[in-house]
Amino acid sequence: MKVYADNAATTRMRASALAAYAEAAENYYGNPSSLHSDGQEAKSLLEECREQIATLLGAKPKEILFTSGGSEADNQAILSAAHLGKLKGKTKIVSTAIEHHAVLHTLSKLKREGFDVVLLPVGTDGIVKLSDLERALDDNTCLVSVMFANNEIGTIQPVEEIGKLCRERKILFHTDAVQAVGHTEVNVEKIGCDYLALSAHKFGGPKGVGALYTRQGAPLYPLIEGGAQERGKRAGTEDLPAIKAMAVAMNEAVETLPETQKKLTYLRNKLIAGLEKVPHCALNGDRDRRLPGNVSFCFEGIEGESLLLLLDDKGISASSGSACTSGSLDPSHVLLAIGRVHDVAHGSLRLTLGPDNTEEEIDYMIQEVPKVVGYLRNMSPVWRDLQQGKRQYIL
Amino acid sequence: MKVYADNAATTRMRASALAAYAEAAENYYGNPSSLHSDGQEAKSLLEECREQIATLLGAKPKEILFTSGGSEADNQAILSAAHLGKLKGKTKIVSTAIEHHAVLHTLSKLKREGFDVVLLPVGTDGIVKLSDLERALDDNTCLVSVMFANNEIGTIQPVEEIGKLCRERKILFHTDAVQAVGHTEVNVEKIGCDYLALSAHKFGGPKGVGALYTRQGAPLYPLIEGGAQERGKRAGTEDLPAIKAMAVAMNEAVETLPETQKKLTYLRNKLIAGLEKVPHCALNGDRDRRLPGNVSFCFEGIEGESLLLLLDDKGISASSGSACTSGSLDPSHVLLAIGRVHDVAHGSLRLTLGPDNTEEEIDYMIQEVPKVVGYLRNMSPVWRDLQQGKRQYIL
Repeated sequence: MKVYADNAATTRMRASALAAYAEAAENYYGNPSSLHSDGQEAKSLLEECREQIATLLGAKPKEILFTSGGSEADNQAILSAAHLGKLKGKTKIVSTAIEHHAVLHTLSKLKREGFDVVLLPVGTDGIVKLSDLERALDDNTCLVSVMFANNEIGTIQPVEEIGKLCRERKILFHTDAVQAVGHTEVNVEKIGCDYLALSAHKFGGPKGVGALYTRQGAPLYPLIEGGAQERGKRAGTEDLPAIKAMAVAMNEAVETLPETQKKLTYLRNKLIAGLEKVPHCALNGDRDRRLPGNVSFCFEGIEGESLLLLLDDKGISASSGSACTSGSLDPSHVLLAIGRVHDVAHGSLRLTLGPDNTEEEIDYMIQEVPKVVGYLRNMSPVWRDLQQGKRQYIL
Repeated sequence: MKVYADNAATTRMRASALAAYAEAAENYYGNPSSLHSDGQEAKSLLEECREQIATLLGAKPKEILFTSGGSEADNQAILSAAHLGKLKGKTKIVSTAIEHHAVLHTLSKLKREGFDVVLLPVGTDGIVKLSDLERALDDNTCLVSVMFANNEIGTIQPVEEIGKLCRERKILFHTDAVQAVGHTEVNVEKIGCDYLALSAHKFGGPKGVGALYTRQGAPLYPLIEGGAQERGKRAGTEDLPAIKAMAVAMNEAVETLPETQKKLTYLRNKLIAGLEKVPHCALNGDRDRRLPGNVSFCFEGIEGESLLLLLDDKGISASSGSACTSGSLDPSHVLLAIGRVHDVAHGSLRLTLGPDNTEEEIDYMIQEVPKVVGYLRNMSPVWRDLQQGKRQYIL
């Protein structure tokens, strides 16, 4: 059996999105900046897509900027808020220890430039505490950046409450919603955020395209300079076929959200229950406040990388943490942040489900994962030590 | 008749490229950073594309970085060289007055940060003088940025000679080859450049993807921070379907280059000869050292924008200058740089041909453009003044 259970890393493009890409590439190939009909028809389609995506987010069309993806959107939002902050003499940025690297590395850069970057801890449930956030906010704070849902452990943050705290203090609030859009309800008015980043390939859209919502009035400076596209905020010929495909995928994901959420929550809970029967393992992240498709475990006594490779032999595509950092020997900063010690964090497994996954696939994983874990433990000196009492079990 | 003559703004995707996009989206949808087979197969295809594109440019695979397009590539190259320059205390950058805005606006930003930016003039032929460049270079110069071929007037710059001057002085050399790749021979070894930017949608590839060649050893810093993709130099999940489609389009463009160049040079020369019969007009840019598909004229006494709209009614998609600045009322900086006065620069027309254009289309444009120019002149008060001797003809 072949099971693709790495939908948080990337998804297969929805058939409707791929068809929309091809249709736009064939029939709307003009440059939206050109004055002739080919260009103006492309421009109209571009603005239709902007309107559709804005509506799906509860935003105004002019608040939507198209980017090359979630990372670019995160970078631009944070750098824009920091730039205005610096002009105003406010150089503190509050974020969390479990953000995506697109956020963390941008913050590191700002730290090197003199910003005071505070990374709040999260609880063992993976959720940031509002009281911690509240204490960190002061008159010097120009930006709060807290992700909507974590890419590794799927935990959903209290973004509405965070938005409220920021609004009360007139502090800009950015949320990386790359894992959330298309997977749970995302509405910028409800969140009360000033920036929201999304990426199409996380919900069945194409790779290489995303969007940044920027609340009207919030600062926005170009990251890529050049032509006057996107109201001068993002240079480069617009990738209309990908933008159209993103709009189609997002619309489909949002329209089918209730049924997908119901189905995935059922499958996720069944998978969690099945894997929890493995001794000395633990679910990562909050059990309920998590994305419908996210299953993340740590298994004591094994290496996540070996687990992935053996599961791959069984036809199961899984991940240990985020795809972006695979190949790195460092344990996941997210798992460390929720209190997993190094050894345990190394034995992690992330299975992320999408609308195409079936109950048969879940049953297959419930059957195969414990077998592979057992097989690896049988070969593991750490596991032998644990069994012989030379080491203490942590989980 | 319908004639698309705005191939410098963007091209229609080659059928082979669109098919390659769809095939990769369907069958290689895994994240190249994932360890499972879906990811590793995607990774292999990604590296095959990198190797193919490198070979087509005379570069090594690891010198190729995939970006979201030409603008991003230009930005990153210039900012990287400037960053190293600043560290070394070298803060002079030499470029030209006719660069694309992706270069000019990045240089403006650096100027605001304290860099000494020198924009060399060009001759009436649109070509930068090597003696001017040589005089501008000094020990404080960290970067020279001169485009390979101009996007408005198609003029090809003496990049090999510029490369030689830079190498002799150990100054980094960036060339924006967005208009050149796939349209004329481009080989990084022959040019001797340290950076070369290209964009897929200018040669029948998809929009939203491009590449930056960076010579081994030249500084390269990320513009988009985040995951460790592209050896840590460009974050964001790789847009493999678009990269594969770019490789296919580039390969096809380069393989068919001799015949396309021959065909387009013939069509271009015929079109130039036909339009030159219009009184009081002038070809913009050098007659021979220009891209095979570029035709750029100024017509005295008319507005380029009206010309475009009337040509559009005749089914001809044309441009006045670059697409990126359309909508702006300022005359083209390129036309001003080659000595056209404001009034004349406003009466510009760019017709850019691609491999799909036919001789019938050229004949049709030779028939229709003069008619439309005549029609507009009949309504133009400026033209009446010229005819009545109240104004002096410039062209």
